[in-house]
Amino acid sequence: MAALQTYSQRAEKYTNAAAKHLLETISRKQSNLCVSVDVTSAADFLSIIDTVGPYACLTHIDIIEDFEPGLLDRLATLSVKHDFLIFEDRKFADIGNTVALQYSSGVYKIASWAHITNAHPVPGPSIVKGLASVGIPRNRGLLLLAEMSTAGSLARGTYTEDAVRMARENPDFVIGFIAQRRMEGVGSLSADEEDFLILAPGVGLDVKGDGMGQQYRTPHEVVTESGCDVIIVGRGIYGKPGSLNVEEVQKQADRYRRAGWDAYLARVAL
Amino acid sequence: MAALQTYSQRAEKYTNAAAKHLLETISRKQSNLCVSVDVTSAADFLSIIDTVGPYACLTHIDIIEDFEPGLLDRLATLSVKHDFLIFEDRKFADIGNTVALQYSSGVYKIASWAHITNAHPVPGPSIVKGLASVGIPRNRGLLLLAEMSTAGSLARGTYTEDAVRMARENPDFVIGFIAQRRMEGVGSLSADEEDFLILAPGVGLDVKGDGMGQQYRTPHEVVTESGCDVIIVGRGIYGKPGSLNVEEVQKQADRYRRAGWDAYLARVAL
Repeated sequence: MAALQTYSQRAEKYTNAAAKHLLETISRKQSNLCVSVDVTSAADFLSIIDTVGPYACLTHIDIIEDFEPGLLDRLATLSVKHDFLIFEDRKFADIGNTVALQYSSGVYKIASWAHITNAHPVPGPSIVKGLASVGIPRNRGLLLLAEMSTAGSLARGTYTEDAVRMARENPDFVIGFIAQRRMEGVGSLSADEEDFLILAPGVGLDVKGDGMGQQYRTPHEVVTESGCDVIIVGRGIYGKPGSLNVEEVQKQADRYRRAGWDAYLARVAL
Repeated sequence: MAALQTYSQRAEKYTNAAAKHLLETISRKQSNLCVSVDVTSAADFLSIIDTVGPYACLTHIDIIEDFEPGLLDRLATLSVKHDFLIFEDRKFADIGNTVALQYSSGVYKIASWAHITNAHPVPGPSIVKGLASVGIPRNRGLLLLAEMSTAGSLARGTYTEDAVRMARENPDFVIGFIAQRRMEGVGSLSADEEDFLILAPGVGLDVKGDGMGQQYRTPHEVVTESGCDVIIVGRGIYGKPGSLNVEEVQKQADRYRRAGWDAYLARVAL
């Protein structure tokens, strides 16, 4: 069962380069923390990433007000400096032809710099086909949003099962899910050999919600109890942008990294 | 029943300014055609819009390679010149806090220039709440993607019903749906007074699919038989970008406009 194996044991079995790279990095850095940097200023963005980079990184490039292409070079430099993967939380959700253009083109050219991105399964298998046509030649990996952490999410039941089936049909490109629990065997009868990476958003140590429908769970609930592989933390680490306190952000990032890693150690010791 | 009333009768009953504006424009121009301009070059984008502008317009600003903010001024100028509304097909699909930033901020600042945009209901009610916090003060309107036109779409059954309930709870901002049929009464017992705008993608006169999962229906099927209000047509009108033939595009746009309008006349005459 994937959840009881170590990250490095699982890295050996993945054929997708991005998945292998992510699992090896997690293992080497002893960090299953992904920091979601949702800020609108390029300076804040780079400053937070340079601060939390020793841990991990997820970006939301599409909310930066003063974006210019040079920002991507600086992001790539930081990714090498701190040895992290770049995961653009784009949540693609259009038809195959359009997502292929959004992924490869536009201002952001996401496929050229993001090791991993994500997509909603709602359009059906064509969204994976469209993204794979751009991502596979570049050794990228895709996560499908099988569940969401918001109140009243419609990603549940047969929707989640269909998402897992779409992943199963594209093992060379779909490496796992945004979800709140393990997905091996969902919508299938035999799942002995399956291994999906599970990245869980909505993780918080101090609060239970954001007043806009987001709901938080602790690293212990998410990693030890529900078996997720990576915790995604945003505002819990950097607070309100614009009042960035580097030392405090570093302290919070390390606090979450330790909580996530301890939760993982507790799980594989089961 | 909304589908049997004229566009101008329905315009009088809407309180949302964007919905009223759209219905009045459709009626005045005798065009229920929305052209989806999915091209990657700013020059092609403006050229197609200037050509099809006498009909209508939907944009996908996020795939333009050489985007720069001045493009939005030129788009706004064309929208006044040709008297059309701008509908950005952004398909928001994130949590409330993030979509509020994506809608108001980033490179595109969509809320400042798009009269109408759309969102997937998958995150639950928080996505409407987040977008409404930005859109209502600007008199914008939102369409929810209740269905998709791709093969194997997961937007069906209870998913579609939940989308309609989310719209019903936010009548000041959610003005209708991206769907393939009328939505009044879906997931509810009484719907006498409801009126949702239905914009239908996947409309084509000549082909049945695109090889990437998109499926096409005719204006007659979509408007007369299924009761949709606006036909969304993309590649059927401008073909492959890069080989733009202005006269041919104009001819196709007028052909689709007539087909869409005739289908509407046939419906309200029922």
